[in-house]
Amino acid sequence: MINQEQRIAIYPGSFDPLTNGHVDIIERGLKIFDKIIVAVLYNPSKNALFSVEERMEMIRKSFINHSNKENIIVDSFGGLLVDYAKQKDAVAIIRGMRAISDFESEFQMALMNRKLSRDVQTIFLMTGLRWIFISSSILKEVARFGGDISGMAPHPVKCKMKEKFPLLKDK
Amino acid sequence: MINQEQRIAIYPGSFDPLTNGHVDIIERGLKIFDKIIVAVLYNPSKNALFSVEERMEMIRKSFINHSNKENIIVDSFGGLLVDYAKQKDAVAIIRGMRAISDFESEFQMALMNRKLSRDVQTIFLMTGLRWIFISSSILKEVARFGGDISGMAPHPVKCKMKEKFPLLKDK
Amino acid sequence: MINQEQRIAIYPGSFDPLTNGHVDIIERGLKIFDKIIVAVLYNPSKNALFSVEERMEMIRKSFINHSNKENIIVDSFGGLLVDYAKQKDAVAIIRGMRAISDFESEFQMALMNRKLSRDVQTIFLMTGLRWIFISSSILKEVARFGGDISGMAPHPVKCKMKEKFPLLKDK
Amino acid sequence: MINQEQRIAIYPGSFDPLTNGHVDIIERGLKIFDKIIVAVLYNPSKNALFSVEERMEMIRKSFINHSNKENIIVDSFGGLLVDYAKQKDAVAIIRGMRAISDFESEFQMALMNRKLSRDVQTIFLMTGLRWIFISSSILKEVARFGGDISGMAPHPVKCKMKEKFPLLKDK
Amino acid sequence: MINQEQRIAIYPGSFDPLTNGHVDIIERGLKIFDKIIVAVLYNPSKNALFSVEERMEMIRKSFINHSNKENIIVDSFGGLLVDYAKQKDAVAIIRGMRAISDFESEFQMALMNRKLSRDVQTIFLMTGLRWIFISSSILKEVARFGGDISGMAPHPVKCKMKEKFPLLKDK
Amino acid sequence: MINQEQRIAIYPGSFDPLTNGHVDIIERGLKIFDKIIVAVLYNPSKNALFSVEERMEMIRKSFINHSNKENIIVDSFGGLLVDYAKQKDAVAIIRGMRAISDFESEFQMALMNRKLSRDVQTIFLMTGLRWIFISSSILKEVARFGGDISGMAPHPVKCKMKEKFPLLKDK
Repeated sequence: MINQEQRIAIYPGSFDPLTNGHVDIIERGLKIFDKIIVAVLYNPSKNALFSVEERMEMIRKSFINHSNKENIIVDSFGGLLVDYAKQKDAVAIIRGMRAISDFESEFQMALMNRKLSRDVQTIFLMTGLRWIFISSSILKEVARFGGDISGMAPHPVKCKMKEKFPLLKDK
Repeated sequence: MINQEQRIAIYPGSFDPLTNGHVDIIERGLKIFDKIIVAVLYNPSKNALFSVEERMEMIRKSFINHSNKENIIVDSFGGLLVDYAKQKDAVAIIRGMRAISDFESEFQMALMNRKLSRDVQTIFLMTGLRWIFISSSILKEVARFGGDISGMAPHPVKCKMKEKFPLLKDK
Repeated sequence: MINQEQRIAIYPGSFDPLTNGHVDIIERGLKIFDKIIVAVLYNPSKNALFSVEERMEMIRKSFINHSNKENIIVDSFGGLLVDYAKQKDAVAIIRGMRAISDFESEFQMALMNRKLSRDVQTIFLMTGLRWIFISSSILKEVARFGGDISGMAPHPVKCKMKEKFPLLKDK
Repeated sequence: MINQEQRIAIYPGSFDPLTNGHVDIIERGLKIFDKIIVAVLYNPSKNALFSVEERMEMIRKSFINHSNKENIIVDSFGGLLVDYAKQKDAVAIIRGMRAISDFESEFQMALMNRKLSRDVQTIFLMTGLRWIFISSSILKEVARFGGDISGMAPHPVKCKMKEKFPLLKDK
Repeated sequence: MINQEQRIAIYPGSFDPLTNGHVDIIERGLKIFDKIIVAVLYNPSKNALFSVEERMEMIRKSFINHSNKENIIVDSFGGLLVDYAKQKDAVAIIRGMRAISDFESEFQMALMNRKLSRDVQTIFLMTGLRWIFISSSILKEVARFGGDISGMAPHPVKCKMKEKFPLLKDK
Repeated sequence: MINQEQRIAIYPGSFDPLTNGHVDIIERGLKIFDKIIVAVLYNPSKNALFSVEERMEMIRKSFINHSNKENIIVDSFGGLLVDYAKQKDAVAIIRGMRAISDFESEFQMALMNRKLSRDVQTIFLMTGLRWIFISSSILKEVARFGGDISGMAPHPVKCKMKEKFPLLKDK
């Protein structure tokens, strides 16, 4: 009755940059799946703060001392998410939910992905209460004006943010 | 790298009675977890159509020919869900979502459960599009007036419903 | 190119009692349909303030001087709405929307009705801004404590309410 | 008691491009109204994939064999929707709803339009369940990455999309 | 430029019983208003766990050592809230919001109250993040099954709860 | 028992331009607070119709004959709202709510602001029913096409709008 196959899940997103909310979802996902592929979406039409490479590097550095780091794979992808998921043999796409407004578009995207492929399903994990107010864009807005972002993002992200936002003093 | 432990999930609910939407969630859950415990909530304050025993029997009969039936356990519980989940060594509580309105109360309940125990987490699976309009209460309403419930519930549930609702002809 | 058939719509509800919001929806409906059947739902399980007969009489009296009164038919029904709609040759079911919360359950009911019958469709009309805060239950609550309900319900409803709620002075 | 006037409705939108969800709404509208004017909004500030002329042509071609095609008029407009509706003697503006999020902004727009003109009202039709996940923007995103868009848009739209997106193979 | 008048606000509710979320709102309110009247709604039609008198006593005891206790008045009321607010010379009605679903009905009630009286307005304060998942009914449900309610309600409420729910051990 | 301190509230926003909905919120706020600072957000990344200076001037002119004008301070700010609020000794940030969709993002922003500072809290005032459909962006859209904006914005705003939108005739 022991499951011999590895259960792989994709956690796709912009991660521009990674927040503590994302870290929380990844850790929750590891309790359910054997491997989580953190997949940075390559989207040329969106104006990103960090390059895909910078974003991947920040994610990698953030988990460098993680007890379960060998089960966290950092990757990037373009094209259709379902094609990518099939190619990686993933059984699920993980999405974090912070609020209702998220749910709406997530729901539509999940329905769309199911129409495109029946082999992969979307599961929703709830972000911890402490991270409910954090998103990459709020993080960037706070940083832009020199607000304190400690407790909102992992250390490697904070370091990289300081390069971009001179107002971010040593907080 | 093969996970030796069984991953058990609880799928709690009233199941008064089981609908095809519930069946869909159970089947999705089996792609992620090794075992699903379908746990009928014993709630004396709510007016139920079927007894807990009848509900459990309908669930069992509905999966009697299922290819994965040995991994579907039908049980009942009273008391706090998190206590029950811990006792069963479950890593997750599965909830199906049909619409926004569900999400609201689910969200609150999930936060509550997390406060009561950090060892179990709630994951949300999306009901298939075809089941988005089905709930146990709608099923009962349609049956009460003799509407056609084929395609809304498994066969054993339909049989049992006919005993309760004489208007339900052989549809 | 002139449409020879009459277009009939059903406007179902509890109407316990009729409010000015309902009147508004009926008048809007008459600009689109040839006939509106105001259909009082006979629901023995719900605790109603007025009997189905009293509710029908209040509706009739409220439209007695209406310029278009011959196109407003007051009726009652039990059973499945779609069966009733088919029997009346209705092309549409009218629903008024006051707020988001309405929409949720309306949406589910509309999907359900479509599954039960493809011949009738649900259309949503928006209640006028002035009536957005009025519902039968709020009307009853205000009346119970002797609040001023003028401007919330037609005259015949106000008269009938005074019989039930002695606190309702001549306002 | 036969209504001698034609009831005309406007179905406004960007239609960049037409989807099967739009087609569904137009067909539903034809069961209620004598004529539907599909009105492509000319909005210079929005970045469109297709020109207004291309969009109108795709709509026309999509209904070329429709049994009711003489009652579907394809047009374009700029300026205020209510002015356009009055000029066309329309009794209603049709809007399709796919999800809650739509409803919110639709509601505000409908209130606004009513303030600007009391002669025209907005009615909401519910998109069929199968089209609930389709929008012009999702269609374009899927096409951009070569996903299968059959079943999401009429044939003439699919042909035109292939000119724009070389990844769209003969699916 | 110093405001000579006292600004009084009503904080109405069932408080069956008081939770830490309610305490949080009262404390926030005191930063804006000179006096807060915590007004327990006397509603004979709702099945309450505690009598109005018991609820008032729990509230009083919970603030007995509060630094600002002379500005917290505990009262009860029946009838229309706006009449009560006028009689108390209140400038505002305070409502706490925990989630979207609250907002919906709060919005309608606030509109209703404004229609009934233009002299009092409703203001919304946001419950602290820690209390977002707590409501009187969830508190009662947890207590019923012997769950740990410390950190959810003030000490006097917890004591009283133990009398009602024997499963509530000394947690 | 008389409160000796002035209670100052910040009402932040883009005000591009001021609408009657904003005016309504300011007047409601003055019934609760001693001073309202109307703070125009300086946001270089957003494409504004009017300069910050023009917007401030329109606000000032709109309240020039207001009975309480000495308690309305017009200002502008950049950077973090909480830093600005602290610097002004404000006890509260006022936000107006028009609909659900507002609430969502307001909620997140309010949580964020609380994390950044515990000294200032956000309170929500409900826009009057008449202004529920008005926003700066809808106002601009109506004006762009020559629609009638009387009753949507104060006179000084209407005058300034006419300079920008030649289609706005003397309505």
